[in-house]
Amino acid sequence: MLYRKWGSSEDEVVLFTSSIDSDKEIIEEVKLTMKAHVIELYLNKIISKEIAGKILSAINDFKEIPSGYEDVHEALEDYIIKKVGEEGGWIGLGRSRNDHVATALRLKAREELLSILDEIIKLREVLLNKAEQFLNVIFPAFTHLQPAQPTTFGHYLSYIEEELYSAWEIIFSNLKLVNRSPLGSGAIVGSTVNINREREAEMLGFDDIITNTISASSSRIDLISSVSGMVILSLILSRIAEDMIIFSSMKLVKLPDNQVSTSSLMPQKRNPVTMEIMRAKAGELIGFFTSLSSIYKGLPSGYDLDMQEMNKYYWYSFNYVKSSLSVMKSLFENIEILPATLDNSMLATDEAESISLQGIPYRKAYFEVSSKVMKGIFTPSINFKESINLKKTEGSPNPEILKNDIKKAKDRIEENKMRLNEFKTKISNKISQLKAIENDLQEGL
Amino acid sequence: MLYRKWGSSEDEVVLFTSSIDSDKEIIEEVKLTMKAHVIELYLNKIISKEIAGKILSAINDFKEIPSGYEDVHEALEDYIIKKVGEEGGWIGLGRSRNDHVATALRLKAREELLSILDEIIKLREVLLNKAEQFLNVIFPAFTHLQPAQPTTFGHYLSYIEEELYSAWEIIFSNLKLVNRSPLGSGAIVGSTVNINREREAEMLGFDDIITNTISASSSRIDLISSVSGMVILSLILSRIAEDMIIFSSMKLVKLPDNQVSTSSLMPQKRNPVTMEIMRAKAGELIGFFTSLSSIYKGLPSGYDLDMQEMNKYYWYSFNYVKSSLSVMKSLFENIEILPATLDNSMLATDEAESISLQGIPYRKAYFEVSSKVMKGIFTPSINFKESINLKKTEGSPNPEILKNDIKKAKDRIEENKMRLNEFKTKISNKISQLKAIENDLQEGL
Amino acid sequence: MLYRKWGSSEDEVVLFTSSIDSDKEIIEEVKLTMKAHVIELYLNKIISKEIAGKILSAINDFKEIPSGYEDVHEALEDYIIKKVGEEGGWIGLGRSRNDHVATALRLKAREELLSILDEIIKLREVLLNKAEQFLNVIFPAFTHLQPAQPTTFGHYLSYIEEELYSAWEIIFSNLKLVNRSPLGSGAIVGSTVNINREREAEMLGFDDIITNTISASSSRIDLISSVSGMVILSLILSRIAEDMIIFSSMKLVKLPDNQVSTSSLMPQKRNPVTMEIMRAKAGELIGFFTSLSSIYKGLPSGYDLDMQEMNKYYWYSFNYVKSSLSVMKSLFENIEILPATLDNSMLATDEAESISLQGIPYRKAYFEVSSKVMKGIFTPSINFKESINLKKTEGSPNPEILKNDIKKAKDRIEENKMRLNEFKTKISNKISQLKAIENDLQEGL
Amino acid sequence: MLYRKWGSSEDEVVLFTSSIDSDKEIIEEVKLTMKAHVIELYLNKIISKEIAGKILSAINDFKEIPSGYEDVHEALEDYIIKKVGEEGGWIGLGRSRNDHVATALRLKAREELLSILDEIIKLREVLLNKAEQFLNVIFPAFTHLQPAQPTTFGHYLSYIEEELYSAWEIIFSNLKLVNRSPLGSGAIVGSTVNINREREAEMLGFDDIITNTISASSSRIDLISSVSGMVILSLILSRIAEDMIIFSSMKLVKLPDNQVSTSSLMPQKRNPVTMEIMRAKAGELIGFFTSLSSIYKGLPSGYDLDMQEMNKYYWYSFNYVKSSLSVMKSLFENIEILPATLDNSMLATDEAESISLQGIPYRKAYFEVSSKVMKGIFTPSINFKESINLKKTEGSPNPEILKNDIKKAKDRIEENKMRLNEFKTKISNKISQLKAIENDLQEGL
Repeated sequence: MLYRKWGSSEDEVVLFTSSIDSDKEIIEEVKLTMKAHVIELYLNKIISKEIAGKILSAINDFKEIPSGYEDVHEALEDYIIKKVGEEGGWIGLGRSRNDHVATALRLKAREELLSILDEIIKLREVLLNKAEQFLNVIFPAFTHLQPAQPTTFGHYLSYIEEELYSAWEIIFSNLKLVNRSPLGSGAIVGSTVNINREREAEMLGFDDIITNTISASSSRIDLISSVSGMVILSLILSRIAEDMIIFSSMKLVKLPDNQVSTSSLMPQKRNPVTMEIMRAKAGELIGFFTSLSSIYKGLPSGYDLDMQEMNKYYWYSFNYVKSSLSVMKSLFENIEILPATLDNSMLATDEAESISLQGIPYRKAYFEVSSKVMKGIFTPSINFKESINLKKTEGSPNPEILKNDIKKAKDRIEENKMRLNEFKTKISNKISQLKAIENDLQEGL
Repeated sequence: MLYRKWGSSEDEVVLFTSSIDSDKEIIEEVKLTMKAHVIELYLNKIISKEIAGKILSAINDFKEIPSGYEDVHEALEDYIIKKVGEEGGWIGLGRSRNDHVATALRLKAREELLSILDEIIKLREVLLNKAEQFLNVIFPAFTHLQPAQPTTFGHYLSYIEEELYSAWEIIFSNLKLVNRSPLGSGAIVGSTVNINREREAEMLGFDDIITNTISASSSRIDLISSVSGMVILSLILSRIAEDMIIFSSMKLVKLPDNQVSTSSLMPQKRNPVTMEIMRAKAGELIGFFTSLSSIYKGLPSGYDLDMQEMNKYYWYSFNYVKSSLSVMKSLFENIEILPATLDNSMLATDEAESISLQGIPYRKAYFEVSSKVMKGIFTPSINFKESINLKKTEGSPNPEILKNDIKKAKDRIEENKMRLNEFKTKISNKISQLKAIENDLQEGL
Repeated sequence: MLYRKWGSSEDEVVLFTSSIDSDKEIIEEVKLTMKAHVIELYLNKIISKEIAGKILSAINDFKEIPSGYEDVHEALEDYIIKKVGEEGGWIGLGRSRNDHVATALRLKAREELLSILDEIIKLREVLLNKAEQFLNVIFPAFTHLQPAQPTTFGHYLSYIEEELYSAWEIIFSNLKLVNRSPLGSGAIVGSTVNINREREAEMLGFDDIITNTISASSSRIDLISSVSGMVILSLILSRIAEDMIIFSSMKLVKLPDNQVSTSSLMPQKRNPVTMEIMRAKAGELIGFFTSLSSIYKGLPSGYDLDMQEMNKYYWYSFNYVKSSLSVMKSLFENIEILPATLDNSMLATDEAESISLQGIPYRKAYFEVSSKVMKGIFTPSINFKESINLKKTEGSPNPEILKNDIKKAKDRIEENKMRLNEFKTKISNKISQLKAIENDLQEGL
Repeated sequence: MLYRKWGSSEDEVVLFTSSIDSDKEIIEEVKLTMKAHVIELYLNKIISKEIAGKILSAINDFKEIPSGYEDVHEALEDYIIKKVGEEGGWIGLGRSRNDHVATALRLKAREELLSILDEIIKLREVLLNKAEQFLNVIFPAFTHLQPAQPTTFGHYLSYIEEELYSAWEIIFSNLKLVNRSPLGSGAIVGSTVNINREREAEMLGFDDIITNTISASSSRIDLISSVSGMVILSLILSRIAEDMIIFSSMKLVKLPDNQVSTSSLMPQKRNPVTMEIMRAKAGELIGFFTSLSSIYKGLPSGYDLDMQEMNKYYWYSFNYVKSSLSVMKSLFENIEILPATLDNSMLATDEAESISLQGIPYRKAYFEVSSKVMKGIFTPSINFKESINLKKTEGSPNPEILKNDIKKAKDRIEENKMRLNEFKTKISNKISQLKAIENDLQEGL
């Protein structure tokens, strides 16, 4: 117990307000943040090379949060002081838990968002490759869950890829806002100590600093916004999960054996359990966003401890999305399409269009076909394959068009990959510089 | 791995769909449910006394869920079969994980709701006792967070008690609906085995059965409703937490030392950390309810695995509310009231009422006083103490009236306690009967 | 503009903060509340019979809210003063908009909840009558949306009724808490005027008063809780809506012609539009509850204007639920069941049970049948009808058992109806007494 | 009634499923979409110049939705056919309500997002101008709502601007995703009619098309994501609203007269009503997002009528945010800062830093000062003004630093404005081209 002094260490406040559980997720990021701070104190000649080296070495030795502390920051500082002695207490200068935790949260979120962007790309690649494979496999398209018109399973897969592209872009936008440094903003108004915030930001691979110290130390808006990106992604996946559950119930697809489970009572069951869990996780993510925004709404400006309760939802959200992406990828790598018996009435629209194109206003042609359908005397003049091949519009299931659309989608993926790699390279280059200084300072200890 | 057969045990499905974590919360309830089932099989002469005894003994020996299982039910069944041999496989007859988990969830929720109802009563008692103590301590009443009229701190405390009473009643209503038995409903349509569902319900202390087997095996509506009761309670507490944060910032109250914390940078701080966490927890509970209802909305009837993801939110909700109640009780046991300087304009309403009671229509009197207030020339003809003593309405801070209201509130608590104790006694009597049979069956093993 | 004086009437604050739209919903309740207040002033000899009569007459003449007012209360007071003259200003004595709006909201909510409880009963009756009609109509029961075991459509309908019963009970509990009077509690601490709050409550048909004036004037917890009851009800309905959408897609049921719609492009479509809207409305109701609880969370005690924004969600919730109940009733009155082709594997459980009942532990029998199912060589020894008739458990689809269960459910409905009618009668008797005084006071004007 | 044929026009389905209310918001966008479609049919030589001209003219004449229609699309088509005759029925060719409504929603959302981005910039400009004005006005900075360290009101204002910048960026990212065209995607699989989707997109000022027709016709993910941007913005504003409510209660600021209101009972009140409503609106927006995502979660792919219920929340969200931005701007244009009495203990951190900078490790200096604060013997060696001027970190309230930060923030605004104007110009240029064709086609009618 380093800072608390109003009560005693056995108080229920310690249990009720402890953040140890969710702090476990950011130990490495808290250590990295502290290293940048220590190096900055050294570069500003506030501490000597020797002290700096000893403190960095202590930081590296810190592995887990012992019990009895409020949070990881108090535990780390106490550890440093115990290892280095009173001189370890220099680390308290020009910093606060407020700016340090804000920095660590952003470092961790950055890592997670990068990994999620990678995973989305991998899933998109699988979808497009599979779309090529199923380019000609007839499949029903539904609206209102009623059979609407024939399409191909390749077309269905390419739809999912396009949805994921939109999510990718918004998550990338979130990443750019997240990758700004709060370090050096202190508790709320910065410090009288000469801290070069740009240099600290540079060491940690941030693109920029969040300038105003109130904003830097106590805003969580970029993190909440990142979670909204996770909700968006999970909503897309939840619709696909629902499709899979329904399609497998309708015997349109056979889900991979390793994604179904059976019943303890009914031996014949092939329950689509991964898709049910994925669908449920979308519901949970909606709740995470609700929790985060309900907590944050109307909070007085400046750091409030309410924000500590928010942290776990960032990690839950990222983890849920990552495992969902991975399971979905595995599902589409192994899915089988079963032979479907489509109803002829799904060709009614093509028929009406065909009549209209012979010079009859569409609404009239529509009523003509419609009346036959209602009387049960509708017979289409084309088959399902022809229906699809006759499609003329960009984005339709016509295999010639779709093949080209897949090509364009693959080009878009390449552009996305390049953008992502540039982003990652910039970060790792900067972090390497910090590591170099760190090694230099610890030399000869 | 007892039931799964479509895939293999290393599949990612196992990790992604595992419920082991939240199942830990209901191990004892799953075991109790299984005991009732085994006894029922015995009473129906489907299994012998010896087999029944051996199985019950194995159930008692089961302590934790080993890794590699889908859930607690599979683990328990496998354990029994390994202990008892093939005859242990009888427990699969006339039951399903669906009705067993539904039963265990209700048993656990019942226990938690009972404990929460107890805790609410304890907090209400503290509030009323403290209200008596602070019967004459002047305190500002706010509307729109602007000082409105003088009241007493006792009056403020009695307000909280009345809010909690309302929550108590609705949670008790939830408890009654929760305390109905799904046991014996099988996977969805019951069974061809002669299971006496009323007798099973009786053994487990349920008031009634949920009749229809679809409802029994796959409804979670009473549990979701119980969580809404938790949200209601947390909303009440969150307003009080907000008051405490603001009142302590305004130096109207001094929070107990063991509920405040300080800053790593600013040594003078007395941060109201427990109240911030409690306020945040209300936001989280809103999110839990959102998760639960978003998951449940539009689920096809019958058990879906989505429901498994719901379970953890029941326990989170109950735990959050329990710790919040306990912290709030401790806070009010130790709170101090600081001397407040109230603004005279808070007596403007009394003045206008007093003028009006001399025969002037209120709106006219109001404008008379109002004009003085705006010109800054308002001087009240009574003081704060008189203002309070002059109050005539039931429920007002007038100490004579309030003392009587506290008396009535205490009577209401006594009635609530009696109702709760009857409920508990009925349950424990029934459970004792099950225990007696259980002991009898295990005798001589 | 009666009360505002700090700014001017053209200010944007008027538009931004106006509650006129949602106040329209409670005009009659605000008038009724004001009548009780006026009569109370008369009974306490604060105003003369003549003035009381004139004010009551003016209240009756008030029909709509003219533009330019903050809210209905200001408009009504201004109207009374204009009609009655300065003496109309007496109504401002011993009351506040805070206690009057709280009273009007509860009066309106009471009316709506009563009407919803009625509608639920009507739907439950339709369901049970139809359940009798479909007692023997074979229908698939699903778990995980996979065919599980055979049931009957009557059994499915009786399940819905039981779910609705649970919602009915919790809504009735909400009603009892709502039916408590805040009238006379003033702005926050009551009044120095002699107002008999119990007598006011009696006149308005309330069961009791909310005692503490802070609670009475500024709590919305019973209303929020009532909305949670609406969410619960809508969740139940949303699952049924989902079933109907899927069942009609699978051609298991034919939805009534007046509940389906077609497409502007595809003439063959029978889109289950009412069920889609109902499913969506459940999502909206989840959002209403989120809005309400997010607004209310952490609000300082005492009235805050945030509460005004909450009002519309009460009425939206009640209206959505009422129209959904009515559409659902109409749907089940007219639904047709189409001949279903069930898969024989749905009898696997019966087979395993039958083998087990010949003396083989269930798990062994299960694996025996299971292995046949997987090899595709499973042939059941009974048919679907026999499967159902063999069911022994209470609540199962066995027609003999179900007939009896329906009988018991109908008895429960009768009890619910009686309880509801007693509640209504008590209210209308009390309101009649107010009307009698009102007539008496207006006599000879 | 143009398309429905299964039931009759008096059916309750019409009322329950009608979208007329929310369709009112998009009449102009639906008309514009239809114009692009008609021009495309003409350019593809499917309809003659004369027919095209007549239809365009009829579209222009269409002003409101008469009663009795399902939605605006049916009403418009019926209107065209009545005006133009059977030839008007050509508009049904190669289009569906699904792609038309998707297009109209995006056109409307684009307009609203552009207007919101404008309003954010205006508010940011006011904040920075006011920040310059209040550059030296001492103001308390709070953490945990406890006085933390001195700052200036200018620093506080610059913080808000930086938060709004982050929201601006994410909303701009949403805008780019929204500005993609679904037109020509038909009901779900496109059409056999030769429709040039790129050309249609160009006419409507879209940047690109959404390629896959399933995605184009039935995805709402970009709109939901846009609403999440509105939630983010409202959360930022809600914290400021909370600050204003608390600061005015603490007499730190005087809110403009036109943003406060008084009480019907208590004449002295200055209630911060606009800020309370704004805080509440943030709660509502959280609910809107919950509604949208709960509705959308798990919807089967392809258009479902549930999506119709989503539409109103887009417009609510945009409107709430627009009015909130405008009220907030007006508030900061007119706010007054009242003289604050700050507690000396707010200088404790500066003192500890100052001691430490003389060569004492910070933690030691901290405990030294801390012990004085607790004993009540702390006297700072600097005053509040010095404290601020001594701050060295980028983003701190030091007026020299802040002046420069404001300069940089203003440059950033200029860049944002330029980006926004380019975006708008591109759209209006493209729309002008459509208008030119439209005029040409109608010439000589």
